[in-house]
Amino acid sequence: MTNLVNVRYLTGFTGSAGAVVVWVDGSAEIATDSRYGVQVGDECSDIAAHITRAGRSTLNARLTATGVSAVGFEDRHLAVADWRDLGDDLGWTPLGSTVDQLRMVKDDTELGLLRKACQASDDALAAALPRIRVGVTEREVARWIDDELRNRAEGPAFDTIVASGVYGAIPHHQPTDRELADGDLVTIDFGARVEGYHADMTRTIAVGQISDWQREVYDAVQAAQATGVAALGPGKTAREVDASARSVIVDAGFGEAFGHGLGHGVGLQIHEAPFLGTTSADKLEASVPVTVEPGIYLPDRGGVRIEDTVVVHADHVERLTTTTRDLLVVG
Amino acid sequence: MTNLVNVRYLTGFTGSAGAVVVWVDGSAEIATDSRYGVQVGDECSDIAAHITRAGRSTLNARLTATGVSAVGFEDRHLAVADWRDLGDDLGWTPLGSTVDQLRMVKDDTELGLLRKACQASDDALAAALPRIRVGVTEREVARWIDDELRNRAEGPAFDTIVASGVYGAIPHHQPTDRELADGDLVTIDFGARVEGYHADMTRTIAVGQISDWQREVYDAVQAAQATGVAALGPGKTAREVDASARSVIVDAGFGEAFGHGLGHGVGLQIHEAPFLGTTSADKLEASVPVTVEPGIYLPDRGGVRIEDTVVVHADHVERLTTTTRDLLVVG
Repeated sequence: MTNLVNVRYLTGFTGSAGAVVVWVDGSAEIATDSRYGVQVGDECSDIAAHITRAGRSTLNARLTATGVSAVGFEDRHLAVADWRDLGDDLGWTPLGSTVDQLRMVKDDTELGLLRKACQASDDALAAALPRIRVGVTEREVARWIDDELRNRAEGPAFDTIVASGVYGAIPHHQPTDRELADGDLVTIDFGARVEGYHADMTRTIAVGQISDWQREVYDAVQAAQATGVAALGPGKTAREVDASARSVIVDAGFGEAFGHGLGHGVGLQIHEAPFLGTTSADKLEASVPVTVEPGIYLPDRGGVRIEDTVVVHADHVERLTTTTRDLLVVG
Repeated sequence: MTNLVNVRYLTGFTGSAGAVVVWVDGSAEIATDSRYGVQVGDECSDIAAHITRAGRSTLNARLTATGVSAVGFEDRHLAVADWRDLGDDLGWTPLGSTVDQLRMVKDDTELGLLRKACQASDDALAAALPRIRVGVTEREVARWIDDELRNRAEGPAFDTIVASGVYGAIPHHQPTDRELADGDLVTIDFGARVEGYHADMTRTIAVGQISDWQREVYDAVQAAQATGVAALGPGKTAREVDASARSVIVDAGFGEAFGHGLGHGVGLQIHEAPFLGTTSADKLEASVPVTVEPGIYLPDRGGVRIEDTVVVHADHVERLTTTTRDLLVVG
């Protein structure tokens, strides 16, 4: 394994450079450089560690020495040049999404960390909300949210999005010095990270009095989000879940304005399998956390997105982010 | 181009998904998804944009339609599976480090942004320093530095390192709740980011009275850093610069305790070409910013690192981070 997220998943090692070989008996060897010599001993003391500047070569030599006939490699992550550097001596077998699929279903420890991260996210929004009003800037709002996330967790799971007024039409807008104005909808997309596990949630709030078209858009997104969550369950396909929520937005006349997928898995990465979208081949299982985040984006007017992180269980769906989805209105 | 840093470098686009084709006449086409439909128009209005969920396929079809016989691709970044998905119809030619080499030499705009980022870093340390004393935790120190960086720039360029006492032996230690104690050396590695450009600096400070071995280690690192900076110049090889600084540490008897390279380029990435190290094949040129950051790490005892971001010019070396390298002592 050469992808650092998968290295962390399999070994617990959190350094920024390293590679791992997993043998058929389940044992493993890790290679990293001297910056992480102490850390690798602390984080994965049960695994043989090679401290070297040439980690992949070292592991490659270990593999060659054992005479194995086939070695799985992360063809979705390893760069072409790095793969060519490994040479042709070993039977390199593409792993495809094997490890991604393993990571998709979370164990109780992982779900516990996601619950903590989501709770911290809900609490951070609640703590920041009273300061959000006419005249404060997008950047200030993002800063307050981030400070609250740092007070409760490792910090933000990704760059916090605050998109007000017309900027609401940009799904991944980065905060500017634009001041919130009366009648704005403000989309806030954020989450906390706890021991490497990411929460992801979005609320669109109203500043003062909004107009009828804004309310119409909000209601459509809220209904679509509820429909999407209700459609989740083990055995459901990603496509049918996406389609159920999407149909609500299409029926409301905003089909063209919902250009992205309904959601995605979360865990050690903010975006990971499964992907809920119109072209996805993924299927849901029990103990799989996903986001459900429909949105409507109207260029030069604004937008709305509502997103929760939820967990698919055998017989129910657990909401990890629990802030109300009814419209929040601030001064 | 599929690597997002290179996409930004070539087009100005800062979204989290996209790919670019550059034609031989210097014109370009970019593909990204609907989340960035508005943003791509704002950031690179002079480039034809395809808004699609299948960006690489779209660009691939454009290339095929033109009948070009060879297409350079980023073999150091593109994953094996993604490359295979592109098919065999086009003459895929590995670009190797071509774009990295282009990015290595900075223009005046880029150097201006690096100067701002480095100034913000110096100022952030100066602002946080008075609060650092016996009893505060590593995490608090990191938080103060990060807050000061956010006050002056986009924020931290990477996860701030605060490594106190024995943790100083871990070059990339992440801040803990350990409280600073009298007699600690504390290594603080941090930097600001300005319009995507990264500053990188490290100071090791003393809390109260340190002992003779700590002073000896500090003096060796300080001398090595000065020697490394003095060795920089156009035409110099990365290896000879590394060797000149390393010899100071070897002569002081700490050669085994300096396990990493002397430094690296900085720009749109925190680590980029050139790499100053014992096995590097890179060569310096004018207008190339690099870090110079020797360190000594003694397991179970502690460590020291001193790092500046500097720019190699035709006839001199410009220091962008200018905080004193003499030992700073706090209460």
